[in-house]
Amino acid sequence: MKHLLLSALLCVLSLTATQVRAQDVLTPSNTENINDLVEAAVSSDLAWNRLSYMADTFGPRFSGSHNLEDALDWIIQEMEKDGFDKVWAQPVMVPNWVRGEEKATLVFPREQDLPMLGLGGSVATPEGGITADVVVVKSFEELEKVKDEVKGKIVLFNAEFTSYGRTVQYRMNGAIEAAKLGAVASIIRSVGPYSMQTPHTGTMNYEDGVKKIPHAAITVEDAMMIQRMYDRGDAIKIHLEMNARTLPDFESRNIIAEIKGTEYPEEIIVLGGHIDSWDVGQGVMDDGGGSIAAWEAVRLMIKNGIRPKRTVRVVLWANEENGLRGATEYHRWVKEDEKSLDDHVLAMESDAGVFDPIGFGFTGSERGFEILTEIGQTLNSIESGVVTKGGGGADIGPLMNDGVPGMGLVVNGEKYFWYHHTAADTMDKLDKDDFNECVATMAAFAYAVADIDERLPR
Amino acid sequence: MKHLLLSALLCVLSLTATQVRAQDVLTPSNTENINDLVEAAVSSDLAWNRLSYMADTFGPRFSGSHNLEDALDWIIQEMEKDGFDKVWAQPVMVPNWVRGEEKATLVFPREQDLPMLGLGGSVATPEGGITADVVVVKSFEELEKVKDEVKGKIVLFNAEFTSYGRTVQYRMNGAIEAAKLGAVASIIRSVGPYSMQTPHTGTMNYEDGVKKIPHAAITVEDAMMIQRMYDRGDAIKIHLEMNARTLPDFESRNIIAEIKGTEYPEEIIVLGGHIDSWDVGQGVMDDGGGSIAAWEAVRLMIKNGIRPKRTVRVVLWANEENGLRGATEYHRWVKEDEKSLDDHVLAMESDAGVFDPIGFGFTGSERGFEILTEIGQTLNSIESGVVTKGGGGADIGPLMNDGVPGMGLVVNGEKYFWYHHTAADTMDKLDKDDFNECVATMAAFAYAVADIDERLPR
Repeated sequence: MKHLLLSALLCVLSLTATQVRAQDVLTPSNTENINDLVEAAVSSDLAWNRLSYMADTFGPRFSGSHNLEDALDWIIQEMEKDGFDKVWAQPVMVPNWVRGEEKATLVFPREQDLPMLGLGGSVATPEGGITADVVVVKSFEELEKVKDEVKGKIVLFNAEFTSYGRTVQYRMNGAIEAAKLGAVASIIRSVGPYSMQTPHTGTMNYEDGVKKIPHAAITVEDAMMIQRMYDRGDAIKIHLEMNARTLPDFESRNIIAEIKGTEYPEEIIVLGGHIDSWDVGQGVMDDGGGSIAAWEAVRLMIKNGIRPKRTVRVVLWANEENGLRGATEYHRWVKEDEKSLDDHVLAMESDAGVFDPIGFGFTGSERGFEILTEIGQTLNSIESGVVTKGGGGADIGPLMNDGVPGMGLVVNGEKYFWYHHTAADTMDKLDKDDFNECVATMAAFAYAVADIDERLPR
Repeated sequence: MKHLLLSALLCVLSLTATQVRAQDVLTPSNTENINDLVEAAVSSDLAWNRLSYMADTFGPRFSGSHNLEDALDWIIQEMEKDGFDKVWAQPVMVPNWVRGEEKATLVFPREQDLPMLGLGGSVATPEGGITADVVVVKSFEELEKVKDEVKGKIVLFNAEFTSYGRTVQYRMNGAIEAAKLGAVASIIRSVGPYSMQTPHTGTMNYEDGVKKIPHAAITVEDAMMIQRMYDRGDAIKIHLEMNARTLPDFESRNIIAEIKGTEYPEEIIVLGGHIDSWDVGQGVMDDGGGSIAAWEAVRLMIKNGIRPKRTVRVVLWANEENGLRGATEYHRWVKEDEKSLDDHVLAMESDAGVFDPIGFGFTGSERGFEILTEIGQTLNSIESGVVTKGGGGADIGPLMNDGVPGMGLVVNGEKYFWYHHTAADTMDKLDKDDFNECVATMAAFAYAVADIDERLPR
């Protein structure tokens, strides 16, 4: 898979090669430092052990949870051992949605527990739950066709996974569209391409003026089963019970650590991931792995005595999953307090899993793309230096919207949405070599952009 | 995968080709009938729809359950529409183990629910459950090394899946070995090569004179997590609560349907699967699919007016999963009542999933192997006619032990143990074309052996 992708991308690269200037960006010393960082990354256990320790010891790191705050305390403590010039926590008020007890049961045509996860932000059912007939649809278009049959019922959106972007619409807006037609609750088929009775949670929307109804996900298997029953003409009845509550906002933190640039300390390369996760599993792919990879990338610079000309800053953003409050606060602080927006040279994020890395997707200027493409060529030994156009990350989105060049780590993500927002996003899904190559890739690009003479132009 | 296997097997075949007599077994009419059966199998929806209906309507078909009895009633009713010469139910007393409510919780070093399944036949915990420190071992050898630390504790067998046969030892005998050392309960890592937080159940043993302790399976993810915690020196404490009961034996049934042979009605080709499943999921791969494929193979003979010289009999065996009582009773009846053991020409079973079929594994005489190999060559169009030496099935085991030639359907089973004995063994895991090719393969071999002049020699 990776090799196929690489071939395709190298083909694209060769077409654009004539537009790339000769190797004019990296000095021999830059290349040597990159090689040292890559070598250090692929031969170290430290980040892997930290990720594993964090995942096992603190569990899922949901916004508002003590798990997350304990993990953040531990991260700060560890970072302080690493020799960063500065480590600090930036207060962020985050939503505080608490799942509570919940269950779904198929009541008719036969009784069966339906493994489920309420969707983040959903209201509870009335006490005792809701038992109602079910209307099954595969799309909003199908819902429109049966709109007169929905009142007082539960709508099951059995939308087959095509792409995440297309399929997640039912998770985001299913409760709104169902409620507009008088439904009493809304259930989706979990948003994922493969299932072993594994429900997926995730965030969702309500709309002002539309009744808030409970919204939950059942497994792909059960959604398909209910569809088959429905297609055979069976009447379907489901009992749904959810005790979710939204508590007052909770003070959490962005964690920030940096090494000051030796020549242009005011110019900043920021890299990171989001340290919060959903409230199930261990949040390893999404996004403990990306967070710790970014942290490790900078720790390896310190460890190897590599001090770039520009400041390199790690940010572990809070609350990407259900609010983006960490990214919003960091952006506000950069603009209003630190006043460093113009000096944010590049923002990098890893939030697509830490599988076998391919390179980076970059959004920025043509010259920026040329520079990054040259840097990528130093990663041939681990085949992770392909830079493609387009890409970024949710947490660097606010910066990118204000013109900061952004890039997101691209990995072989064929299984990313198998685990995404599930109890199966756990440490065992990672391959240590792949993870270390993600570290190497982030380290190489972050270091190089921070150290080359030419500032990455906007 | 299939093509690799085929290449390897065809290579073996070519080596033995000189020993196979010239095409001397099948008449042109035999070949034509096989082609018709294959064509009918791959173009029909009927068996697929029956399997789907059964899986969805009745749910898991565990021995002792009403689900299973309702499914059997429906099967008999459907078989009576199919034009078999005889359809009957053979009473079989089966064990009646009832899971009841159950749960496992990691209590220390942090609280977390552990998805689990009690193992079939396990005793309950005392009321209120057991909370105990945990000793984690990867093997019986490791257990032996820490035998003095086990008393009063829960043993977790974190045995990595290698082959089913090797790994299942911990499910079968874990409770015995742990109890011998004074453990209060025993937990295994689920027996499967891949997991998405999916626990696997299955049967287990107790030993006379050794205390019966509760025995359950947690997921691969959680077993690995606990191992990591243990390796870091964390004390581990688990709370286990099981309310399993073994009720008095329950009268279930083998379902038998046959078409009488036109020339040698006393000679019998028996084919089938086991109709019982575990009490989770839908028991589609294990073994509703094999059962309905065997049934369909014979229905297609009837439907196409193909009446072989020998009797073809479908048996849907009861209670393979936790007792083998159906197979035992069928064998007893054949020997003592019908007195047809010597006239059982061939026994065929499908119980390895109904994935893309490769052929059959055969246990019998050299001449039998030659004949079957020739028959297999008629299946080149669907690449499912490779006959290999060795093979059979649990339900035909008692017949084979008494000298009846036996064969088991061989499929591309790389995912079989992903789903085996889990809630994820559901209809959606099947591919309709693969399933229909399984039907075609069973039909072709069963028909041919029943109709060729030469009786398959023992």
